[in-house]
Amino acid sequence: MIKRSLKNTDIFTDEQLDKIHKTTMEILEKNGMEILSKKARKLFEENGAKVEGKQVYVSEKMIEDALTETPNEFTLHARNPNNNVQIGGKNTVLAPGYGAPFVMEYKKGRRRALYQDYLNFTKLAGYSDFIDVVGGVLVEPTDIEDEIRHVKMMKTALKYTDKCLMGSAMGAKKAEESIEMASIVFEDMDFIKKHPVMITLINTNSPLQIDERMSDALFIHSAYNQPIVVASLSMTGTTAPTTIAGALVEQNAEILTGITLSQLVNKGAPVIYGSASSVVDLKTGNLAIGNPETAKMFNGTAQIARYYGLPSRGGGALTDSLTPDAQAGYESMMNFMSAIQSGFHFILHSAGLLENYMTMSLEKFLIDDEIIGIIENFANGLKVNDDELAKDIILDVGSSGNFIATQHTFDHMRDLRESRLSIKERYFSNKEQPYTEERANKMCKEILEEYECPPLDKEVEEKLDNYIENIKK
Amino acid sequence: MIKRSLKNTDIFTDEQLDKIHKTTMEILEKNGMEILSKKARKLFEENGAKVEGKQVYVSEKMIEDALTETPNEFTLHARNPNNNVQIGGKNTVLAPGYGAPFVMEYKKGRRRALYQDYLNFTKLAGYSDFIDVVGGVLVEPTDIEDEIRHVKMMKTALKYTDKCLMGSAMGAKKAEESIEMASIVFEDMDFIKKHPVMITLINTNSPLQIDERMSDALFIHSAYNQPIVVASLSMTGTTAPTTIAGALVEQNAEILTGITLSQLVNKGAPVIYGSASSVVDLKTGNLAIGNPETAKMFNGTAQIARYYGLPSRGGGALTDSLTPDAQAGYESMMNFMSAIQSGFHFILHSAGLLENYMTMSLEKFLIDDEIIGIIENFANGLKVNDDELAKDIILDVGSSGNFIATQHTFDHMRDLRESRLSIKERYFSNKEQPYTEERANKMCKEILEEYECPPLDKEVEEKLDNYIENIKK
Repeated sequence: MIKRSLKNTDIFTDEQLDKIHKTTMEILEKNGMEILSKKARKLFEENGAKVEGKQVYVSEKMIEDALTETPNEFTLHARNPNNNVQIGGKNTVLAPGYGAPFVMEYKKGRRRALYQDYLNFTKLAGYSDFIDVVGGVLVEPTDIEDEIRHVKMMKTALKYTDKCLMGSAMGAKKAEESIEMASIVFEDMDFIKKHPVMITLINTNSPLQIDERMSDALFIHSAYNQPIVVASLSMTGTTAPTTIAGALVEQNAEILTGITLSQLVNKGAPVIYGSASSVVDLKTGNLAIGNPETAKMFNGTAQIARYYGLPSRGGGALTDSLTPDAQAGYESMMNFMSAIQSGFHFILHSAGLLENYMTMSLEKFLIDDEIIGIIENFANGLKVNDDELAKDIILDVGSSGNFIATQHTFDHMRDLRESRLSIKERYFSNKEQPYTEERANKMCKEILEEYECPPLDKEVEEKLDNYIENIKK
Repeated sequence: MIKRSLKNTDIFTDEQLDKIHKTTMEILEKNGMEILSKKARKLFEENGAKVEGKQVYVSEKMIEDALTETPNEFTLHARNPNNNVQIGGKNTVLAPGYGAPFVMEYKKGRRRALYQDYLNFTKLAGYSDFIDVVGGVLVEPTDIEDEIRHVKMMKTALKYTDKCLMGSAMGAKKAEESIEMASIVFEDMDFIKKHPVMITLINTNSPLQIDERMSDALFIHSAYNQPIVVASLSMTGTTAPTTIAGALVEQNAEILTGITLSQLVNKGAPVIYGSASSVVDLKTGNLAIGNPETAKMFNGTAQIARYYGLPSRGGGALTDSLTPDAQAGYESMMNFMSAIQSGFHFILHSAGLLENYMTMSLEKFLIDDEIIGIIENFANGLKVNDDELAKDIILDVGSSGNFIATQHTFDHMRDLRESRLSIKERYFSNKEQPYTEERANKMCKEILEEYECPPLDKEVEEKLDNYIENIKK
């Protein structure tokens, strides 16, 4: 988690925000949203929305009503209460890369992701001082059968970390199963209904559509009072207008409709305004996320979420680079820095991704963890008080003196005996041996070997295993 | 050059700025500054400063008086008037790395810098779409005799680029010689006295000292009305307190004293409030500049300069990494992004540096040029107007449509036939061949071979050569 003491980047004026809102309302009035779920259309209609065929026209009034009880802040509970996090306010809660079907393996190159990768990344996420939320599709374990993949992932997150969880968005059944799995760990269903214990990504289909699987999952999570991120992944030039403001308007229509649906299901259920929208490289037709347009979209998305009084999600250590090289470094830093300055409350894709959202890399995960540590310090801002201003020390040392031996320097230096050395201190900034992928890979292995986590209760683990076995039958 | 349309980062409150100012004034009153030049001490004394031994005590009143006529903005003139730049306002003028004694050569490693390197980096700076200012100690050509090094560097900058210049800060004689060299190119001395044609770095010695060589150069440049950057390179923990606020106070005392001196020499001479201050890694005693403390110091420095109504200098693509790797990428991006957001008007060290300020690298130069291009786009902000909001296009395309074939997308896509492909497009983002140092080196060579610049007038070149010959005699 990062505590932000910087001001949020406000890229728009109030008039511009009003204009974005007004344009969005016109889109919703004239085109509406294509809602593929009959159940969802019915709920919209019962609550006064105009419905024609699959198009649903949510009015400004319905959106306003929906937003009256959405919480600004809520606590996400972990199996270890010390790892609970508050989503909202000046906190930014972090989750690692999500959804990549591939893994870049040292010396072997890119291949499809397997369960062993899922386990490795779970451990790295558990090891990180900054990552708060694990589980979900940290990487796609393609060697696990689809019907139990979601619960196997959740069990792995529960066993190998004691941090917060992500839930399944793959339709009603899997959503319900993830909640039942969680209820084995968190006392009972009653606790869960009162306390958010998992956060789930509900994606819209750009332009202006929500599919059935996603809205079915939304129904379950919102009914159980579990937080959802309603997010758009529109791509300028293909699934959105090629201009950023247009893409922001389009995703705004999508997100507000999704959020309104959640509030019709359960008024007051926690929701996050989310975006993974980006641009398309028109030369190739590929998604491109390691660019300043994406970084600016973060600024816009977070500010529009503030306009509606909603917590927001966006950003991450995003790059289009294929390897953990300089390009991966500068693109990830730009996007992460912009995300934090934008004021997002939840950052998915914080660590591990290469090649936009396609590939996870152990080495890149550790580089990103370093970037997060740097940004955490940056986001702390500067203190101005008598001790920090150090007037008396400056006067004591005087012209052409040295501060190294002063008590003030001693008091402020970090005690390395007490702090875990940062990755860079262990491996990167070593004059004799500069960073190489080989060294980075060695470091990953060392961390994976060293890694330990408070064990899951034996009885609970058995229950989880039994639950998974029962799904198989 | 970068045009900033973002808001400047204001990290301090008005009260905090007042406190920083007040503390600085107390330092100047009680400790003063050690001024090693007798001539400078005499000038301070004649203008009412208390002088005791080498300590000069500049009063708040003297500083206020000095600041009354310092220009907010001024034009720096290039031999090609199309390359003139405005320093101040929403512009950020860029100069490449400065002062590195070493070069990192592909496959051969680090060695001392030579004239051929100076020439190569000059060409890369000339090639860049963003770098505005060349000359000065772009890299230290250690195979050129010291007595003519400054003029040889200036001639190289004049011959191989038609951009703006940096001048010599190595004492009065060399300062005067760089101005005389420039007068050969810019009509005559009268033009120069009325128009800034070179910018010069005047560094203080932290803590709280100005040496003779620097103040002698200051006398010349300010007398000729040429802009100087008065800059501190204090290092927290050794030459400054270990706390950032304390380091900012100390450098403030140094910079304000230097600026006051320039105004006593020539009231209204252009000055820039500068900083290259950073931190020391207390484990090793090495300067460390690729860290968030440095990025925050940029925020503080630029805001303090605004407090005094002065243009500011800081930042750059700074890293402690030894090679152009992921660390070099993320540290350089962080520092450059923070520098632009801070609102600096002049960024030295924009491209090429590795290993803090010690080493220049061709490959890193091109990576940084790419970073600058990204930040230029980022700093442009977002437009909100009917065309960008694209309401009618969104309504036309409707739910589950595609924007790729719309006229709007066509109108907004970049015409690659007309734009020079960015470095990344040529070399980095190539799926078949990802970035390697070998490919980067090949790209550097290709650019150096391709590079052309509008030639210097033959007669002018002869005069410059003669001038240099005469110094040797």
